[in-house]
Amino acid sequence: MAYEKLKKDYFIAVIGGSSISDSLYNIAYKVGWWIAKRKCILINGGCSGVMEASSKGAKDAGGLTVGILPGKEKDEANDFVDIPVPTGISEARNAIIVNMADGLIAVDGEYGTLSEIAFALKKKKPIVGIKTFDFKEIHKVDSPKEAVKKIIELINKRK
Amino acid sequence: MAYEKLKKDYFIAVIGGSSISDSLYNIAYKVGWWIAKRKCILINGGCSGVMEASSKGAKDAGGLTVGILPGKEKDEANDFVDIPVPTGISEARNAIIVNMADGLIAVDGEYGTLSEIAFALKKKKPIVGIKTFDFKEIHKVDSPKEAVKKIIELINKRK
Amino acid sequence: MAYEKLKKDYFIAVIGGSSISDSLYNIAYKVGWWIAKRKCILINGGCSGVMEASSKGAKDAGGLTVGILPGKEKDEANDFVDIPVPTGISEARNAIIVNMADGLIAVDGEYGTLSEIAFALKKKKPIVGIKTFDFKEIHKVDSPKEAVKKIIELINKRK
Amino acid sequence: MAYEKLKKDYFIAVIGGSSISDSLYNIAYKVGWWIAKRKCILINGGCSGVMEASSKGAKDAGGLTVGILPGKEKDEANDFVDIPVPTGISEARNAIIVNMADGLIAVDGEYGTLSEIAFALKKKKPIVGIKTFDFKEIHKVDSPKEAVKKIIELINKRK
Repeated sequence: MAYEKLKKDYFIAVIGGSSISDSLYNIAYKVGWWIAKRKCILINGGCSGVMEASSKGAKDAGGLTVGILPGKEKDEANDFVDIPVPTGISEARNAIIVNMADGLIAVDGEYGTLSEIAFALKKKKPIVGIKTFDFKEIHKVDSPKEAVKKIIELINKRK
Repeated sequence: MAYEKLKKDYFIAVIGGSSISDSLYNIAYKVGWWIAKRKCILINGGCSGVMEASSKGAKDAGGLTVGILPGKEKDEANDFVDIPVPTGISEARNAIIVNMADGLIAVDGEYGTLSEIAFALKKKKPIVGIKTFDFKEIHKVDSPKEAVKKIIELINKRK
Repeated sequence: MAYEKLKKDYFIAVIGGSSISDSLYNIAYKVGWWIAKRKCILINGGCSGVMEASSKGAKDAGGLTVGILPGKEKDEANDFVDIPVPTGISEARNAIIVNMADGLIAVDGEYGTLSEIAFALKKKKPIVGIKTFDFKEIHKVDSPKEAVKKIIELINKRK
Repeated sequence: MAYEKLKKDYFIAVIGGSSISDSLYNIAYKVGWWIAKRKCILINGGCSGVMEASSKGAKDAGGLTVGILPGKEKDEANDFVDIPVPTGISEARNAIIVNMADGLIAVDGEYGTLSEIAFALKKKKPIVGIKTFDFKEIHKVDSPKEAVKKIIELINKRK
């Protein structure tokens, strides 16, 4: 993927908790992996848990990762973030993640994730969910591969 | 209530939709009215609907109202906001409302309100709800008077 | 000053460094005092130095003070802030102070203050300065009383 | 430049006015071009003028560009932004540009640029300037090539 093509690609946010089980880490990793394989750019909050796992997956598949950080320093990002954006605006940065995403994939998640889902629902952005909050607008899927396929489908339909 | 006492008082946020029915307007109005009667300071998003109704109620009862606005101009505030705070940070201002609140009362509400509930749950701030989203941490009540009584009780317990 | 009159009053920001000499503290104190005496509402960053001094002055003169805080907790505010607004957006909160101000008085100041002056110049808001940065748009004055008189004059002219 | 190397590279912000002369456009273009040639990542505010020119230059040299936008929509970005970050926080996004930059190059500029210089001075980040505001901490240079050489030198010294 050459740089000059980047802006044609989709930005897909992966949202979810910062402290998760091994099995959820594995799921988030694979979601990141498939996002990169499908030539999309991964965005997330740049921290631990689902954010780290999905970034690692995307990097292992040769993708590009963006971390929208709560704090003011780039080194807050996990090791798999290419483009760390140190917003310094704390949880309010969740709104930026949603602004930037063409679509979102929620994996598990606690109340921070819920705030992102809420912003995404308000903006009518497509959301796919694996083991996450239950809203009728969230498309439930069972596997990482299916999640990425579904979100790209939903984004395509919206464009 | 003299100015020098203000900082001892509680800040209570009223959250809810910007476009509501007459009966919800009336409920939100009374919530604002009771907040002022109980010598608390009302905060909300400063716009229409639940925000306007609760501010109007608080002013009619002689209270003080703060509006945390999404835009950059003070005149975006409804007519019943004493202290308009034009954040210019759009929906991300919902995080500021929650930071500032000692407790929150949710009246009805759509996805913007849900983002505020999510931030409040994350920060473990007490929430009382009338006809709103259903989370086990939200204390459901039936009347505006009861809502204000309950939220003050919950804030007192927490201090 | 009854609450219902508040929204008719001017919001005047006092900006300046967080660590200052006794003589500057005294100047900032008097600026706050005169703002309250002239029935205006004081806003500032809510922290130490010029912010604390001006808030103390305003309170001693019976005024109302608003602190637009960088952090997420109200208790970050100095003891003389009536309405603490814990933005959680760090230095970016300087933009909110400028949005909210009808006019600004700069006392001394370092680079944080310079960012506020820059935002105010961009928005063409009136600025009065005592011992501060030198821009042709800043009206230099020698005393706190004169500073408040001048800023009210400039705001009146603009309305 | 492979993706996996990105996080080792420097992020260099180019700041300056959104409406500029042809000769300044040309200077900003070349600054962007040299940033990409030196394998650094360009960041700026994503809009017109110096921002567009430097992004175009960086793209023509095969580089990667990040635009930290004031608004909430990615399509606000100029055509040469690879990674548009729609902050939705208006001018306050200037603080994010500074947080993210390892060093800054100022080209001309009005008061928005001054706010970025102020934040950068506060954070003691290196700044190189071409035809811009005059502060003793800003290293003045005459050419785009020299500007990029100097800023990399200053960043290296700081690490």
